Amino acid sequence: MQRTDVNTLGEFGLIEHLTKDFPIRQPSTIKGVGDDAAVIDNGGLCTVVSTDMLVEGIHFDLAYVPLKHLGYKSVVVNLSDIYAMNAFPRQITVSIAISNRYSVEALDELYAGIRAACDAYGVDLVGGDTSSSPRGMIISITAIGQCEKEKLVYRSGARPGDLICITGDLGGAYLGLQLLEREKRIWQENPDVQPDLESQKYAVGRQLKPEARKDMIETFRKDGLKPTAMIDISDGLASDLFHICKQSKVGALVEESGVPIHQEAQLLALKFKLDPITCALNGGEDYELLFTIDPTDVDKVKYLPDIYIAGEILEAKDGIKLNTKGGNLHDLKAQGWVHF
Amino acid sequence: MQRTDVNTLGEFGLIEHLTKDFPIRQPSTIKGVGDDAAVIDNGGLCTVVSTDMLVEGIHFDLAYVPLKHLGYKSVVVNLSDIYAMNAFPRQITVSIAISNRYSVEALDELYAGIRAACDAYGVDLVGGDTSSSPRGMIISITAIGQCEKEKLVYRSGARPGDLICITGDLGGAYLGLQLLEREKRIWQENPDVQPDLESQKYAVGRQLKPEARKDMIETFRKDGLKPTAMIDISDGLASDLFHICKQSKVGALVEESGVPIHQEAQLLALKFKLDPITCALNGGEDYELLFTIDPTDVDKVKYLPDIYIAGEILEAKDGIKLNTKGGNLHDLKAQGWVHF
Repeated sequence: MQRTDVNTLGEFGLIEHLTKDFPIRQPSTIKGVGDDAAVIDNGGLCTVVSTDMLVEGIHFDLAYVPLKHLGYKSVVVNLSDIYAMNAFPRQITVSIAISNRYSVEALDELYAGIRAACDAYGVDLVGGDTSSSPRGMIISITAIGQCEKEKLVYRSGARPGDLICITGDLGGAYLGLQLLEREKRIWQENPDVQPDLESQKYAVGRQLKPEARKDMIETFRKDGLKPTAMIDISDGLASDLFHICKQSKVGALVEESGVPIHQEAQLLALKFKLDPITCALNGGEDYELLFTIDPTDVDKVKYLPDIYIAGEILEAKDGIKLNTKGGNLHDLKAQGWVHF
Repeated sequence: MQRTDVNTLGEFGLIEHLTKDFPIRQPSTIKGVGDDAAVIDNGGLCTVVSTDMLVEGIHFDLAYVPLKHLGYKSVVVNLSDIYAMNAFPRQITVSIAISNRYSVEALDELYAGIRAACDAYGVDLVGGDTSSSPRGMIISITAIGQCEKEKLVYRSGARPGDLICITGDLGGAYLGLQLLEREKRIWQENPDVQPDLESQKYAVGRQLKPEARKDMIETFRKDGLKPTAMIDISDGLASDLFHICKQSKVGALVEESGVPIHQEAQLLALKFKLDPITCALNGGEDYELLFTIDPTDVDKVKYLPDIYIAGEILEAKDGIKLNTKGGNLHDLKAQGWVHF
């Protein structure tokens, strides 16, 4: 029997391969696989569903991630997918599997973080499952949101001429991870050395306690702005822009000078001898929003804080390019995070 | 710091402990933790959501479970929770984490089983997630159904005088598991001995390829029958009856002579020197329905095939009892399956 290694397909290739033969036959299924979330129309408001699984040793390292932060982040990354549909999360389910090395007190910490996220974003915990695992911890969260059908924003709606917008700033979460990994190595080599993370609070915070952009979706509603396409930046700007371009069948031009990078992230990148723009393009885990708007809507975002216009949607034939500060045009590459 | 072992609380105690401080604040949350599924009202039909996580080495053993069967069963057990709300499943999401010992071909087998279940029950795969795991396979499935609000059936609706009904027959899945475990031990001791499972097709089939009782919910609709309470029998009749009694604040009397046990399961139990009624009460994984009906509805079920009246709901103070074939009254104990 043939044996094809899963690495050969990559995460997105594998999902595409595994799900390609599944038909959609329910009239209530508005959107299936291939966006930030699925959309279901049972009459009334649409139900928006997204799910994520986090595995110890792959997605998180309890050597430096406090359980409370892990609980908080596990919820936030799922809510981010709901906001990226221009929808509001309302409920979550949480399933966990744990080995017997975890105590009830450890789980209490995890759930305190989950509860803090529920409080901060106003969502209800409505179900889940707990079981044991032979090793490590696995967390699977499903977020459920609601949205008027006509207000939903998909990855597929970008058109040539649309402006590319980014909220917040990028690269910080990736650099925070580099820092935590470095401190872990130092600590493993010499357990007497205490980590020095105080001076890099910003980047560490971006990694350990990210927030989803609820505020942005509220602002869009208030200002009557509907993006033409949207995705949350979980895999890095480049990879997530590729998703929009692929689904919308368009190309894109990103201006390096328009990509927002926090000053502390800039400095930290240099410390690690990394190019800040590479961290912003390929770092991931910032959970900011990448969206496109019709150029006639530019006045609606121009004066809003924390939104940056970083480029323009092109025809598909023009490819996906980065215009560097030095004035050179490069092909953008979607490296993202590879978990396999 | 105190360290309480998770075993001390048990699965249900642990879920209760972890979720007790979570408030419900969304008006769309009709039912949260504590039933077969959560219920969300976004206007129109209600959305019913259930989720389950299956961990290799805990919930399944690939030594004797073919991947295709595993995919099928993983879906079916989730659909069963939706039917147990008197609702119809319409969509699923599937998240998997796998170690690199699994090939694309192995995943194709798993997804062929998932697809077969989607085909058989008419549900759409609408989302999910794939990632790697340091060891073994983890599958997390969320099932999403729909139901008119007034047709939903909860665990909490049973009243004294209601009749206790059971679909299908019980104990087979548990005995199938005993058989597979025995064959595995024999094979481990002597790999030349081929397993002899042909003569026990029934029990092995109940374990490896269970079905959810879609047909029953369709029958209820056709006959205008609405149970007063319902649950699917995943942990064993005793444990699941306890859930109904606890949520409904009632007691129950089960007649041993009314508990349906397949003839092959009877014989197999004797072979294993097990009491057939114990297998039916505590075995689990049969995915039949346990429901209660108003006594005035008795004519609606009396002539239906595959429904057995097995007892009566009592006042809470009367406890939960089994009347044996010998005429003795015993307290029922909810042993169920303990995964910790």
